[in-house]
Amino acid sequence: MSENKKKVLHRMKIARGHLDKVIEMVENGKYCLDIIQQSQAVESALEKVDQLILENHLKTCVRQSIESGKGIDDKVAEVIEVFRRK
Amino acid sequence: MSENKKKVLHRMKIARGHLDKVIEMVENGKYCLDIIQQSQAVESALEKVDQLILENHLKTCVRQSIESGKGIDDKVAEVIEVFRRK
Amino acid sequence: MSENKKKVLHRMKIARGHLDKVIEMVENGKYCLDIIQQSQAVESALEKVDQLILENHLKTCVRQSIESGKGIDDKVAEVIEVFRRK
Amino acid sequence: MSENKKKVLHRMKIARGHLDKVIEMVENGKYCLDIIQQSQAVESALEKVDQLILENHLKTCVRQSIESGKGIDDKVAEVIEVFRRK
Repeated sequence: MSENKKKVLHRMKIARGHLDKVIEMVENGKYCLDIIQQSQAVESALEKVDQLILENHLKTCVRQSIESGKGIDDKVAEVIEVFRRK
Repeated sequence: MSENKKKVLHRMKIARGHLDKVIEMVENGKYCLDIIQQSQAVESALEKVDQLILENHLKTCVRQSIESGKGIDDKVAEVIEVFRRK
Repeated sequence: MSENKKKVLHRMKIARGHLDKVIEMVENGKYCLDIIQQSQAVESALEKVDQLILENHLKTCVRQSIESGKGIDDKVAEVIEVFRRK
Repeated sequence: MSENKKKVLHRMKIARGHLDKVIEMVENGKYCLDIIQQSQAVESALEKVDQLILENHLKTCVRQSIESGKGIDDKVAEVIEVFRRK
């Protein structure tokens, strides 16, 4: 397993643990805005993982595509789509 | 448990289930951009839960605060903070 | 003109001046990512103005609506809509 | 002037015209949330222009960088930075 993949997995599992805590907060009737704050922290953590994956994607897949001269427009369209959905 | 709280809990647990699938995708070496797409779907689902909580918060806490004439500025500042972090 | 309105107008005009500079950057063929960075700064400045307007809105319109007991659900729905579009 | 640059300029000028209208709305005391809605529309239009510029950037600069084997990591870091600020 690559270093990048290990890092991605590790961070995603931390985000999942964080989300478990947010669910507990709801179950325990914690203050609404404290719950939203923690939920936004999970979203933000996942966005950072997305960046890590995208970075790796640009350095590997997109690079290979450009080097081989194949499917560049498709690869660029995919990256733009990630950006657009954000 | 209020209807709103049940709905919030239900949706958060669905988001957690979805996140479990994303973690599996990483473990199984799925295509980077498919992983990002599903991760963004989880973020988007959590944002919708935040909206639901905020809606309830405005209808209950902020309303009580305004009706009692107490702590209005603090309540408004808290809502703006949620908006700012988004 | 209220202090809040003056502040909103002032900041919006600064954002417009900033946008004029971004347009010049495009005309002068500046580096793509420098243009995006400045364009994102304009977007961010406008978002901050939105927060200022929303803050004022919650302190005045929503407050009046709650005090008069009229149209609270509509006011809350409007605020959620602003949050949703963000 | 390239087709892409013309399109970018055209859209940015439309966004500027739209922002002028938003400023008029503030001056004329229009309803707060209508102003925010239009301001958010300007932000969204600018984000779409950013996507257009980024798309072109990936197809030209990043491609050249990868083809020449020079500065790939820097180019990827710049794109991630655009994504991060969003």
